[in-house]
Amino acid sequence: MLDLYHYEPTANSMKVLLCFKEKRLEFTSHYVDLHNFEQHSPDYVAINPNGQVPALVHDGHVITESTVINEYVDEVFPDIPLKPDTALGRARMRVWTKFVDEYFNPSVSLIGWHHIVKDIVKGLSEAEFEEMLKRVPLEEQRVKWRLAAGQAFPPEQLEDAKRKIGTSITRMEKQLGQTKWLAGDTYSLADIACYTLTAATPRFFPEFLNETVAPHTWEWLAAMNERPAVKAALAMSRR
Amino acid sequence: MLDLYHYEPTANSMKVLLCFKEKRLEFTSHYVDLHNFEQHSPDYVAINPNGQVPALVHDGHVITESTVINEYVDEVFPDIPLKPDTALGRARMRVWTKFVDEYFNPSVSLIGWHHIVKDIVKGLSEAEFEEMLKRVPLEEQRVKWRLAAGQAFPPEQLEDAKRKIGTSITRMEKQLGQTKWLAGDTYSLADIACYTLTAATPRFFPEFLNETVAPHTWEWLAAMNERPAVKAALAMSRR
Repeated sequence: MLDLYHYEPTANSMKVLLCFKEKRLEFTSHYVDLHNFEQHSPDYVAINPNGQVPALVHDGHVITESTVINEYVDEVFPDIPLKPDTALGRARMRVWTKFVDEYFNPSVSLIGWHHIVKDIVKGLSEAEFEEMLKRVPLEEQRVKWRLAAGQAFPPEQLEDAKRKIGTSITRMEKQLGQTKWLAGDTYSLADIACYTLTAATPRFFPEFLNETVAPHTWEWLAAMNERPAVKAALAMSRR
Repeated sequence: MLDLYHYEPTANSMKVLLCFKEKRLEFTSHYVDLHNFEQHSPDYVAINPNGQVPALVHDGHVITESTVINEYVDEVFPDIPLKPDTALGRARMRVWTKFVDEYFNPSVSLIGWHHIVKDIVKGLSEAEFEEMLKRVPLEEQRVKWRLAAGQAFPPEQLEDAKRKIGTSITRMEKQLGQTKWLAGDTYSLADIACYTLTAATPRFFPEFLNETVAPHTWEWLAAMNERPAVKAALAMSRR
């Protein structure tokens, strides 16, 4: 009944996997290998015309966008809720999930593309790369592939993305100095969304996330890493 | 009990005004004049530290972000609901409100800033402009003010924004060819969000929104313009 199309437990794919694991949902996992461009295959584009992961198929209906998927499954399967039980708490949670989607995630994503895409495309000839690009449904994504493959993101854009990762952690730190979880006293989809982007921050940007400069976020991250659902999602990695 | 801080009935301020009018909520309107930089005043920044409109104060609690505000009031005041009554319908609605926030609105906003900011700042000396900038809380917004005031958005960025307005209308047209409203059979926050950006499209980009190229969207827009709540929100204009 629940078919989840996802990549590795990172970024937006991790966002849905964490939610599904926290809620102990039974689902069929469909691994979409972004390193083999499976997200642009006709079979997958028939499910999500944007050619992006994740996507959920529930009772024959397709739901896209990781943030929307998580709100959806939390409504349809209300056991083990992942939203605060007040409207105010839910509003605070949604400010966070929105901040992740509009600010934090694009910054991490840009730097990720800059470092990863060159390896993904290095085995392709120029003609093969152009053939691959033709199958990318969204114009914006085609532009991003071309820039990333050519290592051509403007340096000031990469610097700005890095700055935004820093301000994102600062914002988390301020909140986590006041409340146990990001939306208040309740563990929620806000924590799940932020974790997908901060899990690897100590490795890639230790200057932004360490015990000294962001002690509350450091403690929160340790608590997140101990959650059985987080461990279960990370155990789904194939790389 | 409901204090709404907003600007003219355009963009994100219109998004909340339309919602409040549709739901026939009693609220105190606080007009924040963006032409006088009132959104950066210490009084307003005490309410929304980001220095952006709209903001809602309900029973002493501040709620920011127009999309979050609309979901909040629809939960707290469930009479005259503005969400579909199924989880699937709400997911479809949220894909639209998210699309507006992440794709359609930034495109319209960029072009709006390019055309409007030069008039807003033309009475300021260079020193006064720098003083104004110092009060802008967000670094990203300071950069945007400087670029817009100097008419320095890259032409290719403006062209790309225009293209995205076109693809946004195309996406609406496809949906409105299948269902009466954007999220299905139910008038919802998705229609409200899209209206804030399409109300002026026939005037500024008639090539994208006219009776011939987007007949369903044209009809939808006419139906929107006839709604008493839309008329009531538009009647709040001071300019």
